[in-house]
Amino acid sequence: MKLVCAQSDLSTNLSLVSRAVPSRPTHPVLANVLLQADAQTNQVSLTAFDLSLGIRTSFNAEVWEGGAIALPAKLLVDITSRLPEGEITLDDESAVTGATSSGEGLIVTLTPKSGHYQVRAMGAEDFPELPIIENTEVLHLTIAALIEGLRGSLFATSSDETKQVLTGVHLTVKQDTLEFAATDGHRLAVVETTNESPLGNESQLQVTVPSRAMRELERMLAHHSSSEETVALYFDQGQVVFAWQNQRLTSRTLEGQYPTYRQLIPRQFERQLTIERRQFLSTLERIAVLADQKNNIVKISIDSAAQEITLSCELQDVGSGRESMPAQISGEDIEIAFNVRYLMEGLKALPSSEIQIHLNQSLTPVIFTPVGGLKMTYLAMPVQIRN
Amino acid sequence: MKLVCAQSDLSTNLSLVSRAVPSRPTHPVLANVLLQADAQTNQVSLTAFDLSLGIRTSFNAEVWEGGAIALPAKLLVDITSRLPEGEITLDDESAVTGATSSGEGLIVTLTPKSGHYQVRAMGAEDFPELPIIENTEVLHLTIAALIEGLRGSLFATSSDETKQVLTGVHLTVKQDTLEFAATDGHRLAVVETTNESPLGNESQLQVTVPSRAMRELERMLAHHSSSEETVALYFDQGQVVFAWQNQRLTSRTLEGQYPTYRQLIPRQFERQLTIERRQFLSTLERIAVLADQKNNIVKISIDSAAQEITLSCELQDVGSGRESMPAQISGEDIEIAFNVRYLMEGLKALPSSEIQIHLNQSLTPVIFTPVGGLKMTYLAMPVQIRN
Repeated sequence: MKLVCAQSDLSTNLSLVSRAVPSRPTHPVLANVLLQADAQTNQVSLTAFDLSLGIRTSFNAEVWEGGAIALPAKLLVDITSRLPEGEITLDDESAVTGATSSGEGLIVTLTPKSGHYQVRAMGAEDFPELPIIENTEVLHLTIAALIEGLRGSLFATSSDETKQVLTGVHLTVKQDTLEFAATDGHRLAVVETTNESPLGNESQLQVTVPSRAMRELERMLAHHSSSEETVALYFDQGQVVFAWQNQRLTSRTLEGQYPTYRQLIPRQFERQLTIERRQFLSTLERIAVLADQKNNIVKISIDSAAQEITLSCELQDVGSGRESMPAQISGEDIEIAFNVRYLMEGLKALPSSEIQIHLNQSLTPVIFTPVGGLKMTYLAMPVQIRN
Repeated sequence: MKLVCAQSDLSTNLSLVSRAVPSRPTHPVLANVLLQADAQTNQVSLTAFDLSLGIRTSFNAEVWEGGAIALPAKLLVDITSRLPEGEITLDDESAVTGATSSGEGLIVTLTPKSGHYQVRAMGAEDFPELPIIENTEVLHLTIAALIEGLRGSLFATSSDETKQVLTGVHLTVKQDTLEFAATDGHRLAVVETTNESPLGNESQLQVTVPSRAMRELERMLAHHSSSEETVALYFDQGQVVFAWQNQRLTSRTLEGQYPTYRQLIPRQFERQLTIERRQFLSTLERIAVLADQKNNIVKISIDSAAQEITLSCELQDVGSGRESMPAQISGEDIEIAFNVRYLMEGLKALPSSEIQIHLNQSLTPVIFTPVGGLKMTYLAMPVQIRN
């Protein structure tokens, strides 16, 4: 293997894929990035894979001699990111002498403009294959729709690893929509976006993808300036693949029955509020300073005569806070309490300047929706008010 | 106590002083900020003190009723920093009912534009007095000189708390200079700046100040746009005070004999190099990626015929790196090795674009000085080269 590439290409792509390198690899080869150089296409591809999440990217290079080799990820990222701009030559020729068939003794030489670096490498044959999905229907989603769906759902996944499917984002592909859902048992976020490639039949596909993979996908897509491009989405039992341009992210899926969340969302409401999102959020942030001192509970009093709501928190040994703000209110007065963290996270994710709050009683699910724009539903469970 | 002040003044000054609030207070009152309001001068002062480091700032306010009270630092910082701009009223009137002489039951009410906050407070009489230094000579230093001195020395202090005086910055006031020194036993940084108020006699004052206080001083001074202003410096046995404008920082001093560091600096050198600082630093940063994998040691080969130096690191099981760069060299060729961290930290602190390196043998102290500008001396001990 011998190739010449731009420092910026190598460095950028190495840092992209290295997100899939496990911090504590279960096998030494997983601490590596697989480099594959194709002399016919003059393409270099880099792959990292922790056996659950896999990322592959490719870029143009001048490939003098094709080949594949596994390179230590962290060391290579750290060196190449510090090299000055310019061409870098990668070469494993020197490895031929003394190299055994098992890859022992492999050495790759990096020659930037100035200097000379050599790193111990491993044989490409030790690197696990990325899962391949064939013979399934492919969906096409715009990058913009995917980012919207992820921004509106990812935050609501559970971080408790024992909660299985709740640690993932649940995707449901219907006729011409793709739905993202996430819940940790206390709140639920659902976003409905457009599927650009309507399914040919009445079928409905469902899959739950680990939040770690979804976060990496969001991060990778966020770097794309053209959000009108599409991402191809393949999935079957156990695996999902997102592919776009020169990049590809694969992930195992989470097993188990995802909660039938639609039935948690009430269909009728006794009360409705329209409120300015940012003002609501910044007021909550101040009340949260107090609420954080104890149980995170904020009380909201809804006053329809005054057309205002009052947020408050009272803690015996610490102090108290109270702020009012205007709202368009229909329905009778009520007092209701929430975990302030759940309210704030939902409000941050709602994409409109005004939002609607729909509720029934003080202990039934409360629904938050944006006014206009994206189809997002955020459900938060109120908590008991203790005096 | 009752006063009206700007949210920005209260918030800015609270965050300044709160740096001296201990994270684990040994006494409950130390988690507070002392607020003193003077109705005559319409000045409010805030004080925090962890019994070693003390910070006091003051600002203008409309003081309706003078008084003093101790307020919970973290809670107040968190609330006021989130309040919108505008006036805030602070009032402890409500505390009169039910307040006992020991300060129990004290409550302060904050009334911003919208909302209403109350926090439990403590009596001002519980708050320890900041040390006062009187009847000593006062020195005047420009903010610029102090910042230069701190930037060039602070990094070299020891972070090992058992090393006593080495955890501080040593200040020596001579006739018309102020010298900053710091060493952790492996390297030494010395900066000489001008004392704007020459001592009246032949006396020489010396004091060692904990690096934590010096870091806070550097941070506070860095916010000042006018670096030509002066800071008054008072010190006597056990205490040092820096005072400027409306701000004051006090610190206990460190006891014990500071090393007589001047005698560590060789007076004659067999070899001298002049080298571009940034290029040297960025080359070291790349070699450090390898050196960090094992013992942090980088080898430097000085080649006077080629007028270049070669930096290298070789690690059996990891790889190797080697880069050369030009230097003006006088003296014979030599190989010398350093802890790459010590080299990099010194190079970052040296304030000139070119630096000089003065050395004798491969195991004697090496001196780094800036070319032009500030009088700074950085000494690093080389390490043995093992093959």
